[in-house]
Formats: sequence, structure tokens, C-alpha cells
Amino acid sequence: MTADTGLPARVTIHEVGPRDGLQNEKTVVPAAVKAEFVHRLAAAGLTTIEATSFVRPDLVPQLADAEELFPLLRDLDVRLPVLVPNERGLDRALALGVREVAVFASVTESFARANLGRTVDESLAMFTPVVARATDAEVPVRGYLSMCFGDPWEGAVPPERTVRVARRLIDLGCARLSLGDTIGVATPNQVTELLTALNEAGIPTDRLAVHFHDTYGQALANTLTALRHGVTTVDASAGGLGGCPFARSATGNLATEDLLWMLNGLGIETGVDLDGLVATSRWLAGHLGRPSPSRTVRALSHEDPVDTQPRRPSP
Amino acid sequence: MTADTGLPARVTIHEVGPRDGLQNEKTVVPAAVKAEFVHRLAAAGLTTIEATSFVRPDLVPQLADAEELFPLLRDLDVRLPVLVPNERGLDRALALGVREVAVFASVTESFARANLGRTVDESLAMFTPVVARATDAEVPVRGYLSMCFGDPWEGAVPPERTVRVARRLIDLGCARLSLGDTIGVATPNQVTELLTALNEAGIPTDRLAVHFHDTYGQALANTLTALRHGVTTVDASAGGLGGCPFARSATGNLATEDLLWMLNGLGIETGVDLDGLVATSRWLAGHLGRPSPSRTVRALSHEDPVDTQPRRPSP
Repeated sequence: MTADTGLPARVTIHEVGPRDGLQNEKTVVPAAVKAEFVHRLAAAGLTTIEATSFVRPDLVPQLADAEELFPLLRDLDVRLPVLVPNERGLDRALALGVREVAVFASVTESFARANLGRTVDESLAMFTPVVARATDAEVPVRGYLSMCFGDPWEGAVPPERTVRVARRLIDLGCARLSLGDTIGVATPNQVTELLTALNEAGIPTDRLAVHFHDTYGQALANTLTALRHGVTTVDASAGGLGGCPFARSATGNLATEDLLWMLNGLGIETGVDLDGLVATSRWLAGHLGRPSPSRTVRALSHEDPVDTQPRRPSP
Repeated sequence: MTADTGLPARVTIHEVGPRDGLQNEKTVVPAAVKAEFVHRLAAAGLTTIEATSFVRPDLVPQLADAEELFPLLRDLDVRLPVLVPNERGLDRALALGVREVAVFASVTESFARANLGRTVDESLAMFTPVVARATDAEVPVRGYLSMCFGDPWEGAVPPERTVRVARRLIDLGCARLSLGDTIGVATPNQVTELLTALNEAGIPTDRLAVHFHDTYGQALANTLTALRHGVTTVDASAGGLGGCPFARSATGNLATEDLLWMLNGLGIETGVDLDGLVATSRWLAGHLGRPSPSRTVRALSHEDPVDTQPRRPSP
């Protein structure tokens, strides 16, 4: 199988399951299970695993055990970024020896106000010392941009809005950016438009990742489009874990397995083992008490996928 | 929103829900409900609706009511093709005044034997009088090709195999062909390879449709790729109804709503109303007793998709 022209030879999967995937799960997962989750993901070949978030424990109870979890991951030889919302979160992360952090900004005023209680500019001001201090400590910062394509209150988001916030985050010192379709509404033309606009604004594509939610089933078509525009880092969540509180569907993040099925088929290297990943997602689904929303996990979870006595035409 | 360069301005959705979608459903749907389903689909703007199948009633009990159903659709001013497996099926269809039919061929020997009890060549021989007689009666024939990309027994299917069967079906007199990824394993490079091979073999792209199953979540990325290669007819099933007996996953055909979300976003005209379609799929799901597997249907089925008091970061 030869790779399509115009596609990268290798893609880095930025696994967000332990953080973005779990954060909205109501069933509280013990730190030991989370640690095993991260270890299993690493064993399956994932090299960047967003481990947890140093947010206020009362706001995200699922991730309140960051201090307990992180030391359980010290033996791992993979990148383990964590989310820090502010300087207090950064202090906690640095105290534990975290080597990479992420901040999350909103592109839209509505979501900045709803999620961060601030205007976009106020939130960027809040991140300024976070990024500066992390960078001084040689801890690279990833800047998440939420609602890059659509916003539940504001509708379609013009690319210029995202470009402006991206520019600011780069200027603050963010090493990389992740473009989030937080409510999963984007279609491939919007991906093309945004990546073109960012490119024209002088923001290098190799500093960009894409972060699609599969709420409307569009994540993989959007990812394919981003790959054709030179993006080589794709965020995904093992088993499709995670949702967005603004779209109360069962579907959430792009499932790492669905992404991997496509990348494997395209001949794009990732270093990740699909069987190991599916086994991990099935194992975690047992802890969460419900099946994985990933189509690939479900398809590969059937004991006997081949019925040798088919009776019905199914073209 | 301007459409991407290289995409068609208009796409015809070939709705297969009433036939391919329902055929494997265990809950037998009364003919009156099926008739309402087809009427609702037509009211939502679908202009080609595969209505039923004239197969042996004992083999596909769900569609055993074709003679009862078809007369209930006479008032509709849309194309209503039906599947006919053989001359007996064609006789039944012609007796009812059917104006378009379809035959289904297998690209692989394994599936031809399992599904049709014949070799590929024997099944093509069986279709020869069906296509000839239909064509004589000015009833155009669509030729389905199953297992165009992968087969559960044989693995990846080389494009030459599909090209050979496609050529034969065209030579028999099929007006159009539908390329089926019956078990949903294809990735976009295979779509490119097959469409290129068919083009090089002199089979005009405007006679081709694509028929993807979403078993591994790949259907929309594959569809996008086919659109870029000039395909303008896409098969889909309302609500994502339908499965394949060879991959016992909950997921089946590409959901018409997920397809429509992408086409609407891309600015590609279809004439189909998303809200009407979602309402139809929700209504039918009530009759089937389970929620639609379409992500778009699920996302749009929430009464209050916007939580105005979000508390958790979700970049």
C-alpha cells in the first residue's frame, strides 16, 4: 500500500484520553487505574500522553488526584504533558517535576466567559505569566485553542478570530498550538480555510496540531484534510472517550483507534499498535461500565466477525 | 462558505435506508410504516430512495412485503429503485410497474459463494438476462459491486478485481455502478486507487456511485476522497440504519445525516433538509426500539444542546 501523494509519512498521535477523555466521566476512576491506563497506552506505542490536569479539584473531581497520579508515571519514558489553567496549577505541576504543560484559550468571547469567567484578552493575560514561567523552567507549553470553527452561542467562527488568538499564544511563548473543534461542527472546507489563514499569518504548520470532536461524525474527514495541509500531530482519545459539556451527545473526541485505522490504511507511520490500543480501551470500558463509542473498538471487539453462513445480500 | 476547489457543486444522495438499512433489522416493520418512512424521506427532499428488494421472502423476511409496499408508493414523484437478485425477482418487480432496478454482484469469489452460492462468473451469468430484459423494458439497472476494497475471508482486494467485474457489468448493460465497501474497512488511499484504476479502464466516473459502511468510522473520509475524484452520487442510509452480517457491529451504512452535515458544510447542494431527515430517523428509531447510530442524529436530538453553566474546561 503506497501512501497518497500529499500525505505525511509519519504522524504523532497526541493521546488525550487520560485527561480530556476522562475529565467529564461521572464514574470516578481511581488513580491506580488511571496509572495503569497511561502505562497501557505507552505500551501500545503512544509517545505523547496528556496525563491529567492541575485544575481546581472541586471543578473537575475526576482529575482531583493529579498529585497522586503523576508520581505513579515516573517510570515511563514518554512525554506526559498536563493541563494547567493558571499559575497555581503551574506551581503544582512544577513541584511534581512535570516536563511539559498546556494552557487552554478560547477563540470566542462566549466560551471564554462561560468556561474561564473572563474575556479572551483577560484569559490571555492570565496565561502570560504561566507561559513565561514555564518557558523559563524549560518546560514547553502547548496552547489549546477552543471553538476554532464553531461556537454554540456564536455559530460559525471566522478564521481571523482563531488567527488572532493563535498569534497571541505564539507571541506569549507557546511552543505548539492545538486547534480545537470543541463542539465537533467543523467540515473539511473550514479546516482548509483556517490552516490557510494561519499559514498566511506566518504561523508554521509544524507547530500546529488538530483536535477534532466526532459529535457529528466529521472528525476523520477533517483530520484527513489537515494531513493534506501538512499537519503531522493529531489529538485523539483512546476509545473515543470524552465529550463536551456543550453537546451532550454520547460522542466526544475522535477515537484514537478510528484515527489509527485510517493512518494504518494510508501507510502513515505512528508506532502505535492497534490491537494493544483496542485491548486497552476495552479494559477501561470495563472500569467505566459502558462500551467504547469508538467504531473500530466495537468492530474489533466481536469474537467472531466472520459469519460463514451469511444468508442476506448486503451490497 | 465557499466550496473547496475540486469538489462538485451538487451531489445526489442515493438513499438506501428502506432496503439496505432495514433488511437486517430483526424487528419486522409493517408495510404501512415502511411506506410512511419512504414518504417522509421524499418529503425531506431525497429524490432517489431504494424502496425494497424482490428477494426470496424466506431469505429476507423483513422485505417479504415488497408486493404490499410498492403500491403504497405510487403517489411519489421520486426515483424508487428496487433490488432484484434474479429473473424471478425482476418478474415480480416489472409486474408492479417498477421503473428502476439494481442487481448486486460480488467482486470476490468468497463472498459470491457465501452470499450468492455461485462463483463470480456464474453470478454474472445469472445477471445477464436480468439486465438484458430490464434494459429492453427501458428499466435502467444499477449494478452493485460488493467487497470492492476488502473481504472478510480474502483481506485486501486489489483494484483490478473490481475493475474486471465493473467492466463486465457495464458490458452487460448496467447504466450505473455502486462501489461497495461492504465491511467498512477501506481507507482513502484505496478509494483513490480504485477510482483511478476504473478511470484508466475507461469507465466514466459519472456512472459511479460510492457505498461506504461506517464499521470502522471511515465512511465520511472515504466519501470526501471520492468527491474529490469527481463522484457525485453517494449511497447513504437514513439514521445510519443497517449493518453487514459479516461485521456484527452496531454500525452499518454511512448515515445520511452525517453525510448531509458534511455536504451542507462544504456548500454542496443536495436538496435535502437535515431537520426533516433527523425527525424521520428519530421517528423510525421509535418503531425499531433503539436509538439511531448516526452521530448527527444523536447530537441534534438533545433538547438543550447548550449548557449555559459549563464548569469544566474542554478544549
